[in-house]
Amino acid sequence: MPDLTDTLTTDVPSGVDVDPLGGEPAFAPLHDPSARGFASDNYSGVHPEVLAAIVAANGGHQRAYGSDVYTARLQEVVREHFGDRAEAFPVFNGTGANVMSLQAMTQRWQSVIAASTAHINVDEGGAPEKVAGLKLLTVETPLGKLTPQLVDRHAWGFDDEHRAQPAVVSITQSTELGTCYSVDELATLVEHVHSKGMKVHMDGARLSNAAATLGVPFRAFTTDVGVDVVSFGGTKNGLLAGECIIVLDPAAVSSIVRLRKTGMQLASKMRFVSAQLIALLSDDLWLRNAQHSNAMAQRLEAAVRDIPGVQVMRPVQANAVFATLPVDVTERLQQTYPFYTWDEATGEVRWMASFDTTEADIDGFAAAIHREMSAR
Amino acid sequence: MPDLTDTLTTDVPSGVDVDPLGGEPAFAPLHDPSARGFASDNYSGVHPEVLAAIVAANGGHQRAYGSDVYTARLQEVVREHFGDRAEAFPVFNGTGANVMSLQAMTQRWQSVIAASTAHINVDEGGAPEKVAGLKLLTVETPLGKLTPQLVDRHAWGFDDEHRAQPAVVSITQSTELGTCYSVDELATLVEHVHSKGMKVHMDGARLSNAAATLGVPFRAFTTDVGVDVVSFGGTKNGLLAGECIIVLDPAAVSSIVRLRKTGMQLASKMRFVSAQLIALLSDDLWLRNAQHSNAMAQRLEAAVRDIPGVQVMRPVQANAVFATLPVDVTERLQQTYPFYTWDEATGEVRWMASFDTTEADIDGFAAAIHREMSAR
Amino acid sequence: MPDLTDTLTTDVPSGVDVDPLGGEPAFAPLHDPSARGFASDNYSGVHPEVLAAIVAANGGHQRAYGSDVYTARLQEVVREHFGDRAEAFPVFNGTGANVMSLQAMTQRWQSVIAASTAHINVDEGGAPEKVAGLKLLTVETPLGKLTPQLVDRHAWGFDDEHRAQPAVVSITQSTELGTCYSVDELATLVEHVHSKGMKVHMDGARLSNAAATLGVPFRAFTTDVGVDVVSFGGTKNGLLAGECIIVLDPAAVSSIVRLRKTGMQLASKMRFVSAQLIALLSDDLWLRNAQHSNAMAQRLEAAVRDIPGVQVMRPVQANAVFATLPVDVTERLQQTYPFYTWDEATGEVRWMASFDTTEADIDGFAAAIHREMSAR
Amino acid sequence: MPDLTDTLTTDVPSGVDVDPLGGEPAFAPLHDPSARGFASDNYSGVHPEVLAAIVAANGGHQRAYGSDVYTARLQEVVREHFGDRAEAFPVFNGTGANVMSLQAMTQRWQSVIAASTAHINVDEGGAPEKVAGLKLLTVETPLGKLTPQLVDRHAWGFDDEHRAQPAVVSITQSTELGTCYSVDELATLVEHVHSKGMKVHMDGARLSNAAATLGVPFRAFTTDVGVDVVSFGGTKNGLLAGECIIVLDPAAVSSIVRLRKTGMQLASKMRFVSAQLIALLSDDLWLRNAQHSNAMAQRLEAAVRDIPGVQVMRPVQANAVFATLPVDVTERLQQTYPFYTWDEATGEVRWMASFDTTEADIDGFAAAIHREMSAR
Repeated sequence: MPDLTDTLTTDVPSGVDVDPLGGEPAFAPLHDPSARGFASDNYSGVHPEVLAAIVAANGGHQRAYGSDVYTARLQEVVREHFGDRAEAFPVFNGTGANVMSLQAMTQRWQSVIAASTAHINVDEGGAPEKVAGLKLLTVETPLGKLTPQLVDRHAWGFDDEHRAQPAVVSITQSTELGTCYSVDELATLVEHVHSKGMKVHMDGARLSNAAATLGVPFRAFTTDVGVDVVSFGGTKNGLLAGECIIVLDPAAVSSIVRLRKTGMQLASKMRFVSAQLIALLSDDLWLRNAQHSNAMAQRLEAAVRDIPGVQVMRPVQANAVFATLPVDVTERLQQTYPFYTWDEATGEVRWMASFDTTEADIDGFAAAIHREMSAR
Repeated sequence: MPDLTDTLTTDVPSGVDVDPLGGEPAFAPLHDPSARGFASDNYSGVHPEVLAAIVAANGGHQRAYGSDVYTARLQEVVREHFGDRAEAFPVFNGTGANVMSLQAMTQRWQSVIAASTAHINVDEGGAPEKVAGLKLLTVETPLGKLTPQLVDRHAWGFDDEHRAQPAVVSITQSTELGTCYSVDELATLVEHVHSKGMKVHMDGARLSNAAATLGVPFRAFTTDVGVDVVSFGGTKNGLLAGECIIVLDPAAVSSIVRLRKTGMQLASKMRFVSAQLIALLSDDLWLRNAQHSNAMAQRLEAAVRDIPGVQVMRPVQANAVFATLPVDVTERLQQTYPFYTWDEATGEVRWMASFDTTEADIDGFAAAIHREMSAR
Repeated sequence: MPDLTDTLTTDVPSGVDVDPLGGEPAFAPLHDPSARGFASDNYSGVHPEVLAAIVAANGGHQRAYGSDVYTARLQEVVREHFGDRAEAFPVFNGTGANVMSLQAMTQRWQSVIAASTAHINVDEGGAPEKVAGLKLLTVETPLGKLTPQLVDRHAWGFDDEHRAQPAVVSITQSTELGTCYSVDELATLVEHVHSKGMKVHMDGARLSNAAATLGVPFRAFTTDVGVDVVSFGGTKNGLLAGECIIVLDPAAVSSIVRLRKTGMQLASKMRFVSAQLIALLSDDLWLRNAQHSNAMAQRLEAAVRDIPGVQVMRPVQANAVFATLPVDVTERLQQTYPFYTWDEATGEVRWMASFDTTEADIDGFAAAIHREMSAR
Repeated sequence: MPDLTDTLTTDVPSGVDVDPLGGEPAFAPLHDPSARGFASDNYSGVHPEVLAAIVAANGGHQRAYGSDVYTARLQEVVREHFGDRAEAFPVFNGTGANVMSLQAMTQRWQSVIAASTAHINVDEGGAPEKVAGLKLLTVETPLGKLTPQLVDRHAWGFDDEHRAQPAVVSITQSTELGTCYSVDELATLVEHVHSKGMKVHMDGARLSNAAATLGVPFRAFTTDVGVDVVSFGGTKNGLLAGECIIVLDPAAVSSIVRLRKTGMQLASKMRFVSAQLIALLSDDLWLRNAQHSNAMAQRLEAAVRDIPGVQVMRPVQANAVFATLPVDVTERLQQTYPFYTWDEATGEVRWMASFDTTEADIDGFAAAIHREMSAR
């Protein structure tokens, strides 16, 4: 062990003395902050109001792991949006929110019904199965939306020891296909699920986009129609990183605090996750961002729907446009504008708008599509 | 479905037009940014240079899930500190870093040897067992440090089908008890572990504190002594949230990218995790912060070690002081200064210094201890 | 502790002196050994030749956990049937055989493609997901049989970190719907699966029935067409309890011995499991039993197919007949003849024949169906 | 598909016509039924009365998966031994009984306290962790027996989210070291565990040996002292394969039927497991076998304890003798008599007696030890 007196000095000024963000940052951007595309809403950065909230929550000491004042305040904010029984459990990411919600809603021997296009089935690397042992019973849907009839494809055999008992129906709002359940559709579906003794989980990675589309408050299509638990998304709508399990019916879950810990989704400096969520849920930031990204998708759809050879595949009810166009056009466009091919087999592509997408971005992209299609 | 034209408007200005952090934040602090204590280094906030890095990385679009320029740059930075073969895999938190590291280092039927005081055994809610099926073989140690002899308590039965084969020895540097392995101790231990056909994982939640204590670069007591994988800690040393699995021997792991995803530790906007880590590893911020918190612990130890009735329990080789004092004194002190009782049975307490602890904090606290002890 | 001398006596004669099964059994049957039905082939008991093998393997000491001479001999027997590279790993039950096979064939982050009707998806209580973290990608099939086209529904996205990589296609032969893949169908399917870099697992709970139907040796439709691993079924074909993982391509699995242990499927007195399997695979017992149960199913199908109102739903290519008939008739028949309703929605029922089903059983049952249908 | 008429014949006589075990078995023993040793009680075979019970339970059809008359009868038999609230759940093996018991007794985030020598910790390949996510908190003991003081080493932090909450104390009776808890020790221990809000699981792989040693009925040291759940062992005491989870307090478990299924421990032809257990628990077979094997261990201990250079290490309170003797003597003895070295480091060996060990076996072995020791 070396002589500690050599390496330990006290003349290092404490970090707290530095003016927060006031000086010249030693750290220069490595990227072009003006570059944007249509690949994903999580390609975007952090909304300035969210950054401001992080800065405001900084400084001094706060109890870790959720015993801080920001997480306490978040409970109040969430209850304003989701009703008096709502409880908020911040987590790191959407997979964490979904898997922890579903684990807390199920016994170890139960299963979850979902659309085959559900994020939990397609995009989480098997985390539901691999972390939580969840069995998914999937069903194909036309627009990414379950119906009572589709649920009933799996809603049987509850007493059969050989069958992983269906306990939860997980739906996504807005869906992975850019569509939205209407309030009536949700009310009917939830009532049906409850009548079968099951519970409803809503993957709300883009819940704000759905609310903006429906033009109603969150609670109108969650709490008020009987949804039990929501994975509330923040990252895709302007947060740095932060999602929130919102329990609407406390009887629908158990052990969620413990499971969040064993599921490695417990943030030590949770104040910063909570502060982001507070910012998003304050001053209508969630709505402003979602209305904007939805509007940008609408603008894009309007600009391309009449181009011969371009076919918009589904109603644009959130911030995504799905379309087919010639593969060679796709490839040329992707050299300038990042976006993903959704289905290699059909050539269908997905264009996502984000809170920071501008009208000029849309107009420029639409013009490029026009150009490429005309040039064939 | 309501008429979308009512709810979708394009007059919401895009967030990118707002001057980052330039205006009046709508979000006011809810806490007292001058309050500090000795409970944990994760009660502290974010170092200003780290915040600046987050701001610098913001704006525009970057590929998600680690395909961004910040994560690419992080690889270079990590190699500067840990050698040319090092590979960095940012994750959300320390439990994630540890469990994913160990899972990637083991077959499904193997086990991990650790000190009984190891964070993976004591403080992770069983995540190693519950998420990754890891069996821990624990051994009691005097100072939280394993030795070849202690490892050998479990290093047998490798070919026995009935025994979960020991494959990894996990050590913590600096330890959960505020002690440090010396470079020689590590070299000897690692060599022994390798001679048994096992690998070495180092939980480096406070690796910077260890480096500051030892007065050597990271690689001198990791890569150069043969450690295979490090969980590099950032959050306890001034990050908002961010840890990093650093693989020193690529042959020691498999499937780590896949396992990070299924383990729910893959950040979508990873640029912000990576930017934090780059900031920490640049301009000696890691060292400045660690030297400072170490020095504050030394200052506290020096101030209390001669107070009759107060007994410092272990060498202070990082940023923690463990001491015993009368329970009634502890209780009175805790009314003003947050800190934890480490062992209810013996009355031992833990005092943690952080990057933002000031000399005045220490001196005030030490004076209070003096006062309370004198008043008995 | 009581005085041991009181309770420990040596005058208890050692069990080995008792003539095996020669005396009057103290244990009288509690059931009617003449009762049979059509509910399941696992409602039947143990074939006398299998019981004889258990008795022959009894007496004296044998090494436990598979190091016995019967398990060694089983390897030879299995190689005679499945080729020189085949390796046999006896387990307790079919779920164990399937889950351990699939676990040994996959990495922790991979997935398995299967028909939605597969036993692993429907009848194992979620064990694949819950014990082994396996993600199943299921597809609906007309006759319980996968095709290259159906496989391709899921055979994509191999390099996508967000998708649990498809690694194995699991097929059932004969299927859960009483159908059989032809040798050509299997050859084509396996070749296709291999061309995609995936492996083939065959759930052979009723492999003998398939062999009897196809009229070819086991290896003709397993080893010779390139199947990688088979779950070989014994219990449904006359064993007390015993299934066997048969690895046809040793490169297709890893750690199977270890995984069988951690999967709780390692029998201590394995000699008795192996002896049962040897008996089944000797003197064509597997074939005699399967030919018989298949023939009984054929006999039943022939007897009912022309009854008005009874519709046989699928080709009878193993030991099961699936049919629809009026629900009230089903209910009256079930009062005398145990059998299961397969699909509550459609009224489809399943009639299983077993190795001990007699022609009189079939004829009596068919006559009862005739009577009930005529009486309506 | 070949012509089915060629391969499907009905002239195969049904197996039921064969006289059970009356004819010449086609299957000849492959081993020497007179060979015995001291390696393990699971090297022995099946007691004739157990074989007779299997034969008696054979023939005809019985409902599968535990809905048979033998499993129903087993419930009555178990209640006679363990009291009116006892419930029996047969499983395949001891690891299955232990892991399923503990899983049914715990929430997903809890942990289990056990002696470091416990079978669940040492000999189950990590199945508790890997199948059920159970975290084990182990403690070293002098004789394999826990005490209230040793339990208290881990019985703390129940409300700490970061700690896997201790919920069950698992003890083994008789222990893996050949010792027995007295009734008073158990009463004191169980009362202490319950006072801490935890439950007691007893691994009774050799419960009969303990009962024989204590000279009391099972219930005197299980139900009557408050044990909650017992893994009742059969295989080591003369069964072919069969263990039984016996729930003494139904409130101590949940979902055990479902968990047994997902844990792959549900036998389809359960009548044969239950019949074995009924036979063992009838006519004092369990006691006769255990008294005998215990007596053989006593006889061996008496014969060797005075041999110079041989040291018996622990009280012989079941059917095992642990001793140290020179390694070269061990190696020469093992050429004739199979037994295991227990601890390579100290040269300690384990000699197990079984239900079929004869006085002549013991006397011959003791004489050999005498000879070898004298010859040095």
